[in-house]
Order: sequence, then structure tokens, then C-alpha cells
Amino acid sequence: MRIVTEKDLRVCIKLDHDAVKAVEQGFAYLSQGKATVPPILMLPVPEQQGEVDVKTAYMPDIDKLAVKIASGFFNNNKKGLPSASGMMILLNSRTGFPEAILLDNGYLTQVRTGAAGSIAAKHLAPSTVTHAGVIGTGTQGRFQMRGLKLERDFKTLHVFSLDPEDTVEAYRREMAEELKVEVIIEPTVQAVVEKSAVVVTTTPARKGFIRAEWLHPGLHITAMGSDTEEKQELMPEVFSRADVTACDLKSQCFSLGELRSALEAGILTRESPVIELGELVAGTKKGRTSDNQITLCDLTGVGVQDTAIALQALSRAEKQGLGTVVE
Amino acid sequence: MRIVTEKDLRVCIKLDHDAVKAVEQGFAYLSQGKATVPPILMLPVPEQQGEVDVKTAYMPDIDKLAVKIASGFFNNNKKGLPSASGMMILLNSRTGFPEAILLDNGYLTQVRTGAAGSIAAKHLAPSTVTHAGVIGTGTQGRFQMRGLKLERDFKTLHVFSLDPEDTVEAYRREMAEELKVEVIIEPTVQAVVEKSAVVVTTTPARKGFIRAEWLHPGLHITAMGSDTEEKQELMPEVFSRADVTACDLKSQCFSLGELRSALEAGILTRESPVIELGELVAGTKKGRTSDNQITLCDLTGVGVQDTAIALQALSRAEKQGLGTVVE
Repeated sequence: MRIVTEKDLRVCIKLDHDAVKAVEQGFAYLSQGKATVPPILMLPVPEQQGEVDVKTAYMPDIDKLAVKIASGFFNNNKKGLPSASGMMILLNSRTGFPEAILLDNGYLTQVRTGAAGSIAAKHLAPSTVTHAGVIGTGTQGRFQMRGLKLERDFKTLHVFSLDPEDTVEAYRREMAEELKVEVIIEPTVQAVVEKSAVVVTTTPARKGFIRAEWLHPGLHITAMGSDTEEKQELMPEVFSRADVTACDLKSQCFSLGELRSALEAGILTRESPVIELGELVAGTKKGRTSDNQITLCDLTGVGVQDTAIALQALSRAEKQGLGTVVE
Repeated sequence: MRIVTEKDLRVCIKLDHDAVKAVEQGFAYLSQGKATVPPILMLPVPEQQGEVDVKTAYMPDIDKLAVKIASGFFNNNKKGLPSASGMMILLNSRTGFPEAILLDNGYLTQVRTGAAGSIAAKHLAPSTVTHAGVIGTGTQGRFQMRGLKLERDFKTLHVFSLDPEDTVEAYRREMAEELKVEVIIEPTVQAVVEKSAVVVTTTPARKGFIRAEWLHPGLHITAMGSDTEEKQELMPEVFSRADVTACDLKSQCFSLGELRSALEAGILTRESPVIELGELVAGTKKGRTSDNQITLCDLTGVGVQDTAIALQALSRAEKQGLGTVVE
């Protein structure tokens, strides 16, 4: 059994085309019916504004499966600690025996979530994107822009955030340097939406804050923040303006994602034409077909992404001799 | 983060009064509404007759919580490998941060399941038990009798098993030596039930094999085999003969345990007077009140047991300096 720490995982895995390819493969299995994804186990720890989630997926074509334990404890921030932690456990899918523990503290989740954003942009963003936008300046605010940059070579990044000024300023400096783009802090969400061809929302908001009337032809929005029944970033009416609506996993998004509130508002039904990322990857469905369309993508995070990225991480750690072997 | 292997866990934890006490505390929290137990995450791996289950429980009064990953892959037997494997991960319940990984390969589950059987016997078995019975000669066939022996000093053990002769013979020798009892291999389940004051069923049967007409006054039966929707050990009619019916967790037993088929058969309703072990431990409900009653207990395994035993294991491992500390 190999045990790999976050430090070593950061050495062997990053959000690049290889990571995106691995996650694409996971989504392809999902859309081909070659993945079993049980409902997420969620353990609330309300005293700490916390939650432990367990996700997994089994793909018969792959000889390992990952079980991911992810904690988000939002009182940690008050204690000066990061809110996210966790690990991925790889089991042999022929015997059930544990083979590796990746003590990633959520790093691999950040990478695979950024990769999903990249896949969404590849199929749904307009062909040329000069102005990108992001709502939220946390870790996914960074990873989503890294993922987008892999697919669309944007030059200007418009940012809105409720974070304190120094956090936003740190984000501005970091992204400007890393992505070689001009970063503009905007005073409103509306300004970001109106100026950008692609917007990614990366917040834990519990109320929709993107309004339908701000949308313009050619816009693509990826909403990756909502992954529980309480969260929401898009007003339900946004969906009535979309020419193409996509998501990672319909069954999950209709209960935990943006599709949930659109369903409740009667704007979508479970029969509405919503495309899954796996169908885009496999080529069985088309994403954006003209630069004037408005497109949306709702991401909640699927166990196939975890298994995909965990496998790539373990394979690299083994090759590079990283980690501790126990027994 | 401390990582403890099965070998070390076997050194520091066994099924004794301390282990039973820890598990009792877990059940007490459960019955007092001081435990959150989300539904079990179940991932089927049908190609290998396999399943990965994840159980957890959060008890606000305890500063850690365990997430248990348990695999049962029944094709492993054909490969000469054990079917069970897995681990428990302890998280700090104030921050969500991982604190320990117990690579127990199912050993701690065996202990805590035996402990639940012991608790059931304490409150439900007749005060004096000379003849005990067991159906099944696997690992739980052993642990259940160890657990029973802690509470009732039986002298003779009646055994029925479908296992091959050498497996049954190994069981006979082992139990006779360890528990200092006479072990008699019986030709039928009926013989075991009729001769015993306490019977524990420990099989993965998918059809009830204990018939109502075999029950006699003073009998206690613990059925611990069923923990999925497909498994069953008791014919539903058995429940119509019980004076006292108990279980570990009603909501779980009505979907995964023996209570499920009794419910389907209309012999029990969700409103029937079924006692939970935690109520017996806390003293808010009474178990057996006379030596002539027929009593039943249905065990499916609850996350509070895992958290309880994992905490005891970690505390001992720390004291004894067992395990590897990573980072």
C-alpha cells in the first residue's frame, strides 16, 4: 500500500492537458453507461458549519476505483485553518483490496474540478474568447481560470468577489503573473457578465446572483459552486435564455446543482434537453454550434472525475518513487 | 497522521469488556439523538460479486469521527483471497482534518459486530444460558460466540454450518479450546434452535431459514447476517412469536435487516414496538423481563459502532506507540 502526501501529489499532478484528458475519459465512461456512481454520502457537522462528503465511482474497464473523503469545515477559517481537507483511497476493483491512499487535502479535487471546467469550455465557449470573467477569488476561482486558459487564450480577466480587499488583490497579482493576462476587479457581478464571453461562478452562494437580463449572445457560463441542495448561483430564469444547457451528471445536478432550482421554478423539467459532459466528450451530442448562442454548464462534481485523477496521480507517484510504502 | 496496520490493531484491540463498553457508549449516543448516521453508501461491483460500503456517524460529544470503507468481494474466495478488506479513517470532528488511518482489513468491524451481539445478549438472553447455538462457522460465527461468552457462561455450543467439513472441524476445535466449551456439530438448523437458549445466525443467506415453529419459550435469537436488501435469515413469521423485538437501528433494519421481510410480510409495521439497543443500554426501555419470553435482535451494523471502536483502537495505538506517523 502506497501512501502519498499532498506535497508529493503537487509535484506529480497539476491542471494540464494530461489531467483534462484523464477526466474526459472518466466522463466518457459515464455517458457510455460504463460507470456506476452511487449517491454521495453526506455527513453534516452543523456545529462547525462543516460537512464530510464521500464520493465514489466504479468503472468496470478500470482495475482500480477511488473512494474520496472530502471535508469542508467553514468555521476553520475563523481558526486560521483551511476549510477543505480529505483524501482519496484507491481500491483494486477486482479484489476490493486497498492499494493506495492519496493524502491530498482536497488538492486532487481542485485539479479535477478545474479539468471539468476546461472540458465545458472546450465544447461550449465561443471559439475565440478575449474577455473571461470569474465570480469568486478562492481556490476554484484560480483553478477554473487555469482550466479555461488551456482551451481559450483569453487576454483580460474580469473579477468580482465578496472577499476582503487583500485576498482579492492577492488573486489579481497571482493570476496576472501566472496566466499573463490583465486582471480587472469589477464593482459588480453584472459588469463581469456584460464584459465577458465566458464567466465561471465559483462561490458557495445560497441564492442566485446571476440575472437573466445580463446575458448576451455568445456568452458561456459555467456554474461550479453548487453541490448541495442549499446552494445556488444562477437565477432560475437564466436557464430560459440558454440555447444549450449542459451539466456533468443530470441526476446529480437536478438535486444538488443549478438545475435543481430551475426544476423547482418550472423552467426546466427532467425531460428538458440537457447534455452531459460525457456526451460532448464522446461526440454523441454537440455543444455550442454558433458563436451567437448562449450556453450554460452546471457542475456538481462526479466520482468518475475522482477515480480518473487519482489513478493518474498514483501512476505518476509510482513512476517517480514518491510516497511511503506501508507493509 | 498515524497509520496503524491490522497486525498492530490486533495487538491493541480485542473483543473484551472494554470494547463492548465503547460500543455501548456509541449506541447510547444514538438512542439519545446525539448521533448523526447518514444512509450507507453502497457501491456494487457485480463482476466480482463484490460491494464497497461506506459507513460513518458523527457524535457531537466526541472530538473524532470515523469513516469506514469496507469491501466484500466474494469472488476472492475462488482466488484463495479473503473476501473482506477495508479501513477506518478518523477525522477530527471539529476541523474535518484526517488524524489516523486504521488499515484493519475488516478486523475492527468484526470486533464491534461481536460487541453488538454481546450487548444484545446482556439485555435479551435468559439470565442463565447453558446451551448456545450458532448458525455459520465463519469469522462472525467466532466473534458472536466470544461476545456471548462475555455475558453468559454457556457450557455447550451447538453448531450448524453449510461450510466444508474441514472448515467446520477447524471451528469446532478452535472454539472448544478458546471458550472452554463442548462444541457439537448438529445435522440441522432445527436441532440447534431446539437445543439452545441463545442462537446467533451469522450467514449471508438470502432466504429465511429459521422457522417460527422451532422457537421455544426462553429462546433468544440474534440475527446479524443481513445487512443488505437481499439478505434474510429469519422467516417473517418468527417475528409474530417474539415477546420482545430489538434491533440496532430501526430505520436501517427496516430496509436492510430482518425487519425488512417482516415488514413486507405485514407481520411488523414501522410502528410496531421494536426496541433499539441504545435504549436498552441507556435504560430507557427494558429488554427481557422473564425467562420464558422469546426475544429477537436484528443487527445490521451502525456507524456509531465504527466510530466507537476506532477511537478505542487509536487511543491504544497512540499509548503503545504503534503505527507509522506520516508528515
